[in-house]
Amino acid sequence: MPHITLPEGLPGITGAMAFRPETARPLRALAEVLLRGENSLSSAERETIAAFVSYRNDCDFCHLSHRAAAAHHPGGSYELVDAVRLDPQTAPISAKLKALLTIAGKVQVSGRHVTEGDVAQAKSEGATDVEIHDTVLIAAAFCMYNRYVDGLATWTPADPSLYDAMGQRMASQGYAGVSTPQNQAEVAGTP
Amino acid sequence: MPHITLPEGLPGITGAMAFRPETARPLRALAEVLLRGENSLSSAERETIAAFVSYRNDCDFCHLSHRAAAAHHPGGSYELVDAVRLDPQTAPISAKLKALLTIAGKVQVSGRHVTEGDVAQAKSEGATDVEIHDTVLIAAAFCMYNRYVDGLATWTPADPSLYDAMGQRMASQGYAGVSTPQNQAEVAGTP
Repeated sequence: MPHITLPEGLPGITGAMAFRPETARPLRALAEVLLRGENSLSSAERETIAAFVSYRNDCDFCHLSHRAAAAHHPGGSYELVDAVRLDPQTAPISAKLKALLTIAGKVQVSGRHVTEGDVAQAKSEGATDVEIHDTVLIAAAFCMYNRYVDGLATWTPADPSLYDAMGQRMASQGYAGVSTPQNQAEVAGTP
Repeated sequence: MPHITLPEGLPGITGAMAFRPETARPLRALAEVLLRGENSLSSAERETIAAFVSYRNDCDFCHLSHRAAAAHHPGGSYELVDAVRLDPQTAPISAKLKALLTIAGKVQVSGRHVTEGDVAQAKSEGATDVEIHDTVLIAAAFCMYNRYVDGLATWTPADPSLYDAMGQRMASQGYAGVSTPQNQAEVAGTP
């Protein structure tokens, strides 16, 4: 049961955003630019960072939905994002993404944990300043989204097929929709 | 030294936002609605929650700047926000704000730490669903801003008078300014 009275039938963050459209707008715009905006990191890579941080924050709704989004973007798959969850350093991903995931993992705990050595390693693997910036901000942003979703005890569906459908929509339609209850229902896959 | 090459002379988050205007826009819009939008919680109360969470996250720049913003809003003072930092339960604030700060303190650690009892206590002290929602989201958002500021090792000025001037501008002019380097310099108080 959510801690406050949220619109029914809307899972996770979609219920909280339908409750408060004023804050939903910037929250959606931020996700859109971070995960789907023009970038030298692919959306699959950025959604993988989002899913990884959400898993570390123990946020099932965000982990499962962004895991599915990563899988539905070109270059992504459930196998890849799950391998990253288990151990980024042995996952079959680029050395650059491994170094960026090290930074994301530090940010998940505290921004102060990121070291000059972590950043030097990412740069030596070819990461640009914008890629490092965006990795830090994606990790930081999911420390917000995760706390928002769980701090209100929003509804976390148990049905795995719902997350697959959600991830498909997140990958193809994105996050920038207008925050009306109707639109939220659409995002959530309910009629 | 920042981990990436940021515009010089811009403290804390202002340097990071000038570096990446695409993400700065929603970050600024979110702060504006959360801390200065129409609300039954005063801006002094909301800035106090922001400063409290930033202190718990060990983010000096955000703590000192939002502490100053809280002090410059009607009903706020440095004495009050510092008393909250030391112990919300003994600070001379309303029972409702104490209960909301308990929730904010839980969210700072993990959204999952917020209990039904915490929320029931806030409601029994008169907190509305919107106030509880906004408290959770302010606390969650500062877990993002704090990690963003420290994860990039942005410049944290040592001069206390700079934070007082910054807080005065944050309280009077807000966060929604267009993110041009010129505007950022203005926010930072540099010519």
